[in-house]
Amino acid sequence: MEEKPAPTRERILDAAIEVFSTKGYHNTRMDDIVDAAHSSKGSIYFHFPSKEDIFFGLVDKFASLLEKRLQNVIETESSGIARVQKALTVCVETFGNYQSLAKIFLIQAVGLGQAFELKREETKERFALIIQKQIEQAIAEGEIPPLDAETAAHVWMGALYDVVIRWVTTGQPTPERMLPTLQTMLLRSIGVGEEKIKEVTRH
Amino acid sequence: MEEKPAPTRERILDAAIEVFSTKGYHNTRMDDIVDAAHSSKGSIYFHFPSKEDIFFGLVDKFASLLEKRLQNVIETESSGIARVQKALTVCVETFGNYQSLAKIFLIQAVGLGQAFELKREETKERFALIIQKQIEQAIAEGEIPPLDAETAAHVWMGALYDVVIRWVTTGQPTPERMLPTLQTMLLRSIGVGEEKIKEVTRH
Repeated sequence: MEEKPAPTRERILDAAIEVFSTKGYHNTRMDDIVDAAHSSKGSIYFHFPSKEDIFFGLVDKFASLLEKRLQNVIETESSGIARVQKALTVCVETFGNYQSLAKIFLIQAVGLGQAFELKREETKERFALIIQKQIEQAIAEGEIPPLDAETAAHVWMGALYDVVIRWVTTGQPTPERMLPTLQTMLLRSIGVGEEKIKEVTRH
Repeated sequence: MEEKPAPTRERILDAAIEVFSTKGYHNTRMDDIVDAAHSSKGSIYFHFPSKEDIFFGLVDKFASLLEKRLQNVIETESSGIARVQKALTVCVETFGNYQSLAKIFLIQAVGLGQAFELKREETKERFALIIQKQIEQAIAEGEIPPLDAETAAHVWMGALYDVVIRWVTTGQPTPERMLPTLQTMLLRSIGVGEEKIKEVTRH
């Protein structure tokens, strides 16, 4: 992942992904991460007081990466509809690129209880807000009819999350199968016409 | 709730809703439920070996009630689109009627970890299957264009769950505000035309 923080912090997080993926979150001890990061105990505990902090560090890192990729798409595409369509692809691709990490977030994190649930809701709200802004802009540009953009963003967020979580946990349906359906449904849901949908999903 | 099982089992579950709602799930002891149900310890442990079993009993009871109400709608409405529209209303209404119970499911249950997560996924799959059948029927009856009904059902399930969970936990947006948007978006997403949507959501 291309990110900004200090190299040591980064090295710890990268090592943690490795160790979590192979040993599982719950079976991982801080010492395993110390070893894998070729770091010292003191240095790890300086950056992350607990295993949970490392985990939340990974959630933030993943969310920031996804956000950066989305920002790229948003800045590159000129039409609101095309932006939205590309953004969906980027979400699914990013989860695909980091599937083992996504699996940790979505499955193993369950045991973390309340703290994780709050983090998850906070992260979902953060992305719902990005979606909301894009929908509002498409309305303002006259590309789609007016609608309650806040509710719409959560409809999208829920749909996306559920389909992606199901794919990551069960392997089904594959992105190749679900992505076209997901894109068509979400674009239709905000009032994009069939002709326009065919146009933006063609390539 | 109108249900079938033995009265004692029912009385325990009803008492548990009361106690969980007032004391919170985690602060409730089995003895509190024994007292509230005017039952004996032996009788409660016969039906439910643990507090978690009572909780899962409530999830099943709520899911069965919702399923029965949905089945009613499905049998009463003749048009696939009207069925789907009514079913959405029933979902939101049922969560509204049992909001304190819904809150327990959606918030307090977090601490239950893996076991609850599995139960939740199982319950979501159960309802996704009901949605899928309705979508398949609407396709078969020529009311909507063909689409991947399995993916579509999960798009709907995710959207519904997210919006409802958000309303139950934050109180916003209210059903009066979000229901019209939710209905319009979901109907559009499967290719129902604007005219038809206005027709079924009018009353």
